[in-house]
Amino acid sequence: MNPTPASAQIFRAVDLIRKKRDGVELSRNEIESLVNAYTRGDIPDYQISAWLMAVVLRGMTRAETAALTDAMLHSGEVLDLSNLPAKKVDKHSTGGVGDKTSLVLAPLAAAAGVAVPMISGRGLGHTGGTLDKLEAIPGFNVNLTIAQFRRVLETCGCAMIGQTAEIAPADRELYALRDVTGTVESPYLICASIMSKKLAEGIDALVLDVKTGSGAFMKSEKDAAFLAELMVETGERMGKRVVALITDMDQPLGCMIGNALEVVEVVQVLRGEGPEDLRQLCLELAGWMLHLGGVSDTVAEGRKQSEMLIASGKALDKFRQMVELQGGDPQTVDDPRKLPQARHTITVSSPKDGYLASLQCEQVGTVCVILGGGRERKEDSVDPAVGIVLHKKIGDSISAGEPLATIYYNAETRAARARQLLEESYQITDSPAREKRPLIHRVIGKPGEKN
Amino acid sequence: MNPTPASAQIFRAVDLIRKKRDGVELSRNEIESLVNAYTRGDIPDYQISAWLMAVVLRGMTRAETAALTDAMLHSGEVLDLSNLPAKKVDKHSTGGVGDKTSLVLAPLAAAAGVAVPMISGRGLGHTGGTLDKLEAIPGFNVNLTIAQFRRVLETCGCAMIGQTAEIAPADRELYALRDVTGTVESPYLICASIMSKKLAEGIDALVLDVKTGSGAFMKSEKDAAFLAELMVETGERMGKRVVALITDMDQPLGCMIGNALEVVEVVQVLRGEGPEDLRQLCLELAGWMLHLGGVSDTVAEGRKQSEMLIASGKALDKFRQMVELQGGDPQTVDDPRKLPQARHTITVSSPKDGYLASLQCEQVGTVCVILGGGRERKEDSVDPAVGIVLHKKIGDSISAGEPLATIYYNAETRAARARQLLEESYQITDSPAREKRPLIHRVIGKPGEKN
Repeated sequence: MNPTPASAQIFRAVDLIRKKRDGVELSRNEIESLVNAYTRGDIPDYQISAWLMAVVLRGMTRAETAALTDAMLHSGEVLDLSNLPAKKVDKHSTGGVGDKTSLVLAPLAAAAGVAVPMISGRGLGHTGGTLDKLEAIPGFNVNLTIAQFRRVLETCGCAMIGQTAEIAPADRELYALRDVTGTVESPYLICASIMSKKLAEGIDALVLDVKTGSGAFMKSEKDAAFLAELMVETGERMGKRVVALITDMDQPLGCMIGNALEVVEVVQVLRGEGPEDLRQLCLELAGWMLHLGGVSDTVAEGRKQSEMLIASGKALDKFRQMVELQGGDPQTVDDPRKLPQARHTITVSSPKDGYLASLQCEQVGTVCVILGGGRERKEDSVDPAVGIVLHKKIGDSISAGEPLATIYYNAETRAARARQLLEESYQITDSPAREKRPLIHRVIGKPGEKN
Repeated sequence: MNPTPASAQIFRAVDLIRKKRDGVELSRNEIESLVNAYTRGDIPDYQISAWLMAVVLRGMTRAETAALTDAMLHSGEVLDLSNLPAKKVDKHSTGGVGDKTSLVLAPLAAAAGVAVPMISGRGLGHTGGTLDKLEAIPGFNVNLTIAQFRRVLETCGCAMIGQTAEIAPADRELYALRDVTGTVESPYLICASIMSKKLAEGIDALVLDVKTGSGAFMKSEKDAAFLAELMVETGERMGKRVVALITDMDQPLGCMIGNALEVVEVVQVLRGEGPEDLRQLCLELAGWMLHLGGVSDTVAEGRKQSEMLIASGKALDKFRQMVELQGGDPQTVDDPRKLPQARHTITVSSPKDGYLASLQCEQVGTVCVILGGGRERKEDSVDPAVGIVLHKKIGDSISAGEPLATIYYNAETRAARARQLLEESYQITDSPAREKRPLIHRVIGKPGEKN
């Protein structure tokens, strides 16, 4: 019943697995050796998966979390953007439905003089992905080399690409393993995964948008806040200025869900239009980015500057410039009809008078996946044209027969399933009972105090 | 952050991993599918190791433990010994130092008319293994086919072999994986491993000897009792009569440790001689085997019968017959000089007058491994001749210079290390302070009531 050392290396791995299993803290060196040996291929998947499960169930200390993040970060290239005079600031969201703020924020902050080197992901599960939204713009290339990425960044102050092979390879391998071994849902592992990739961008500061509610991965505010605190502390331990906003994802953000539709809404916001919740969240996040990027003394001032950059058209100009530099058709920015269009629409109408009491947000995200706008599997391709436009949001009053939402679709069979699920997502009550959830629940981290 | 189904099969495995991770009970069907798919090679090691770690940290219900045992049991052949008129009873020990009771009990119970189809293991870590002890007898073959095993059993009423490829293959694979993933130390997994192999022998009843103390895997009586209760309940759920004795392993059992030396002591006990603790434990376990095997109404009566079978020489005759049927030299039974002999001895003497207060039992087992009498790795071969003979046991009075133990060795370099470690294992005090630990701590399970 004792472990058998098949080799010194394997023996050590077993030792570290047993330690974590027994709730003993691992040293920075031990975590580093484990990650390095795994990335080199010296430790088999079956040992790491056992260790990952022990981490899920035993947790990690703050020091262990930082050590894991650091080891994953240094498993690959860490960009050195010190040649750029501007402060480098990124924003990361934990994912939601209709969350297109990245496409607004990168050009907006860049227009203010902050450099935004943004490396993003694809949609998975019920949530959309920034890369899929960008690729709805005909010609837009998210697969730049690091050298091309630098060039776009130097030219226009922002650039948006997908993860490259050079960035945090340990995270890529660990994530693939976590995905099939039930070890995704650990705040410590989620923190290390996010922070290792973001810190590899060579940034000075990071604004985190941690979603909570029925459409978020962290349904409860408590879980969201725990993850947020973990990420803020991990970033601070690594010498970065980090703030986390816990924001609402109990209903989709804005009114449009689906890749091309979300680009339309992004342009609306950059024109000073668009739905109020999306506008407000973009301004708040931009305020933080400008503040941490050193171009505004306070967040409020950063907000004001952002509003002015939108009003003057400079933010939209920056977006157009980035689209063009990354190979996209800049005309789409001014003429949404140049974006992919779905062939058909159907309208879902309210069965009765009343108030929209709740909207199953994750389910609305799933409706978009069913239409073909998201991925059920990593290898699936997405249909950029399909999606949903919401005509009512939580708290709105509704008359019987009034449209709740429009479904944009290309395949009849998918539309039927989508419609049924969407109809089931709505709860309409006679009176506007529920208290309104705030858009921004809490702000975690006080990077301003370090100024 | 959601699991991706790469195929329906893998998706299901992830689902079961997540369930166990979250502390949800798995159904009998779910556990069976998991074990079967793993044995077929349809689930990769990295998924099972994550599941095993979740089991270690979340535990299992009694129903899950029984389901796992059952699935592992039916992953291979289950012997049908119904052609033998006698009841089939086995004994299993969780392992200790100097524990040679199996070699006494198989012929003793067989002499009383109980059939003993015993499938045993090899030594690993600081504990010895029954197969290694049997192989100290020149010619003794523990690698019989199932057909040969049956023949010996039918001819003399007992047979002792190693695990064959047909028996519980799922256990063999799972054990190899547990060994390198820090997932050995779970009472649920230990129970399923032991019980699946034992129940594959086609037995009616099982006597478990669960060791506790400094030389046992379960150091505390609480842990030993927990495992014992688990095994008894699992056996009962599967329709077997099972009893567990929690017995002492705070010092080696008997006086001889080492493969050939232990055969010598076995013969002593079968002659009515030998150390009192070993004799008493053998009689108690034999009493239970005879009782559960239906040849004695009570355990006490079973003990008495066993004493008579020893006194009459019938038990020793049975041992000689089994040795001969399995290819061993029967003369070794009557002339211990025919067993492998170590070339050298050294004596460890007491540095002072006093009483033997304690003996680091696991360390004494390690001394035997260092001498070459046990395995540091599974693939190591063992030296049958080496070992230790204890001249004093806990509680004995000692004079300065009096021999505590004799080391039997073949290699000088090993002897030096062994001697030092052995000397360090003794604690000698001025007065006989400690209360004597009982030989049998508790009996768990009441199979008698089912008669």
